[in-house]
Amino acid sequence: MKYNKPMRIALLGLGTVGYGVYEFLQKRSDMEVACAMSLVVPDGVTCPIVKSIDEILSDESIDTVVEVIGGLHPAYEWVKGALSAGKNVITANKLLIARHYSELVALSKERGVALRCTAAAGGGIPWLTSLKRCAEQEPVIRISGIMNGTTNFILDTMHRTGGSFADALKEAQRLGYAEANPADDLNGADIRRKLVISSNIAYGGVVNEDDVAVEGIEHIQDVDIAAFKRMGRVCKLIAASRKLDGCIAAYIEPSLVPPSMPESAIPDNYNLISLTGQHIGKQSFYGQGAGRYPTAYNVLQDCVDVLGGVDCFYTDRLEPLRVDNSSVERPYYVRTNGVDKWLQARIDKMLDCGIMTKAVSVTEIHAWAKERRKTDSSCFIASLR
Amino acid sequence: MKYNKPMRIALLGLGTVGYGVYEFLQKRSDMEVACAMSLVVPDGVTCPIVKSIDEILSDESIDTVVEVIGGLHPAYEWVKGALSAGKNVITANKLLIARHYSELVALSKERGVALRCTAAAGGGIPWLTSLKRCAEQEPVIRISGIMNGTTNFILDTMHRTGGSFADALKEAQRLGYAEANPADDLNGADIRRKLVISSNIAYGGVVNEDDVAVEGIEHIQDVDIAAFKRMGRVCKLIAASRKLDGCIAAYIEPSLVPPSMPESAIPDNYNLISLTGQHIGKQSFYGQGAGRYPTAYNVLQDCVDVLGGVDCFYTDRLEPLRVDNSSVERPYYVRTNGVDKWLQARIDKMLDCGIMTKAVSVTEIHAWAKERRKTDSSCFIASLR
Repeated sequence: MKYNKPMRIALLGLGTVGYGVYEFLQKRSDMEVACAMSLVVPDGVTCPIVKSIDEILSDESIDTVVEVIGGLHPAYEWVKGALSAGKNVITANKLLIARHYSELVALSKERGVALRCTAAAGGGIPWLTSLKRCAEQEPVIRISGIMNGTTNFILDTMHRTGGSFADALKEAQRLGYAEANPADDLNGADIRRKLVISSNIAYGGVVNEDDVAVEGIEHIQDVDIAAFKRMGRVCKLIAASRKLDGCIAAYIEPSLVPPSMPESAIPDNYNLISLTGQHIGKQSFYGQGAGRYPTAYNVLQDCVDVLGGVDCFYTDRLEPLRVDNSSVERPYYVRTNGVDKWLQARIDKMLDCGIMTKAVSVTEIHAWAKERRKTDSSCFIASLR
Repeated sequence: MKYNKPMRIALLGLGTVGYGVYEFLQKRSDMEVACAMSLVVPDGVTCPIVKSIDEILSDESIDTVVEVIGGLHPAYEWVKGALSAGKNVITANKLLIARHYSELVALSKERGVALRCTAAAGGGIPWLTSLKRCAEQEPVIRISGIMNGTTNFILDTMHRTGGSFADALKEAQRLGYAEANPADDLNGADIRRKLVISSNIAYGGVVNEDDVAVEGIEHIQDVDIAAFKRMGRVCKLIAASRKLDGCIAAYIEPSLVPPSMPESAIPDNYNLISLTGQHIGKQSFYGQGAGRYPTAYNVLQDCVDVLGGVDCFYTDRLEPLRVDNSSVERPYYVRTNGVDKWLQARIDKMLDCGIMTKAVSVTEIHAWAKERRKTDSSCFIASLR
């Protein structure tokens, strides 16, 4: 679709991000908010508010739907309905895109309309657009980074203050960086969705979310942070994937990075995400991973791209990508309340707090940690970078 | 111009970058090297080699000229000729673009052809394209970063080894990170061109290169690095500009950054460049600032954009941008062989090596340092961040 008149947008959601998008759009003449749907309508919103998605889907003057309500339902039905009705969809919904990737990408291709979700991974960072640009020119062989602002804020706070996990979480909640129910951030489910979407675009295929190994930071304690400081390391929740022969490795885990890695210096709730291209080496992208304006900015950039003629997803490749983490080996820091047979055979060094293992595979130690938590629910592991 | 057939490219230069571009283009069906001009033709190059620019300018089948010979002449005449002949120009030549900015941007606009130079600032980093995307959506209020790989390598080496400037420079030359005559890298002339081009695009206007205050790293010594280590700081050559009321501040100087700033952890010859948008906050971009494939990658991305319909420069705004650094104040580290009246009045603290001043303006201290070098040629200054 090429635009000779203003893009007419239906805005689903007028919450934190939605109202930011609304504000940005007020300043433009090439795009307009045709209508919005929202349970709560902030003061100052003057566009028509519709009550039913059908009003939007049947309105042929609306060419683009921006979905910023989040969650799976009704977002899934509404986005599917919009694509089916031949409307471009721009969304910040990582859960939706990660969960229904193949179906939605195929539908956008079939209908010849845009499906974009740049704000879904990296908030305000031009990550997915940069990743797509690279992947189109040359093989991306690796992705990694800090992709969750909530956990980075908590880890950064614990390192700075020496305080407890509970206090750092409370502070994150007070500042609006963590939700009332922060489980998906802390256990890694949120960052996993971002890694899945990024890996799909990077390698051209579809990763099954459940195949991506994940360890979160919910079990970390101040004694761990103190141990890392003695080691001269900084703990960060790192998501990583890389291309292997016939499969990919993909995992998320707390990682102990040295001061020489830029990841070590990422403060507050910021993100740093990197790609490695076969010829161009490493490129990294840093910025706010969440927040009204950063996220609304990427939604707007998606609108600009669609206005410029983009009429597809970032890739149309939907072959399955098999995940195998058994060849990725590193030493791990392990804190648990005893030493079982498996761990005993892998000890490299006993620390004042915790144990350093010899190099073990991601597959092996993630499985061990999950099993171990049946007897020691506070067991924590972190890989040494 | 919209492309229904392959883009036909004349490649000016088959050196380090040029041959990288040539290799990338061999893999594509949507672009082809129509011919090349080069004094030396590497083995394996099979395209026609022409002897005169006129053969290219008069060949109507050639739509795009890629200039990667560097230097002012004959690059200036050739690029001007190509634009005048209605051909798109893609170049990695920062000297050319910074020096003849207004003329070349105006010419590209007049002829309705693309002029792109993404590889000219940040090597392989998608910096100028990301900056342009942001500047089109919302006010960019600040730019800053490490934009010169040679000096970052030297500073990083001195910090790591504790060795001398001369040894670090020798190592940079051995690895191909510094040229035989490294003056433009060391004295800041190279990074200044990148800051000028970036500022022009960020703020929409034209900065006079000579108005940008610059202090390089050619006077730094191992004793300075040792002093910075005692302060817990890392020395980086930072280029920065920001929007002020009716003017901009723009300067380049060695800067002492704390470990909490990601700039402190940028290794080897890498670059890290940041923009700050009014609403979206800080975004940073990290990668190799030079080298065959990184640089060729950005040249290729420019070709991709032109193929996709780009037919202009990043901006067409050519109003003069006045530079005034008198309101930017910071404390400075100063090492000189005595204390004159100006310095005496501004001492905050005497160090084992050097002096920390009270906050002084960029305008004032840069002027003082230049004057001071008439009596102490090795005088070195660095701002405290």
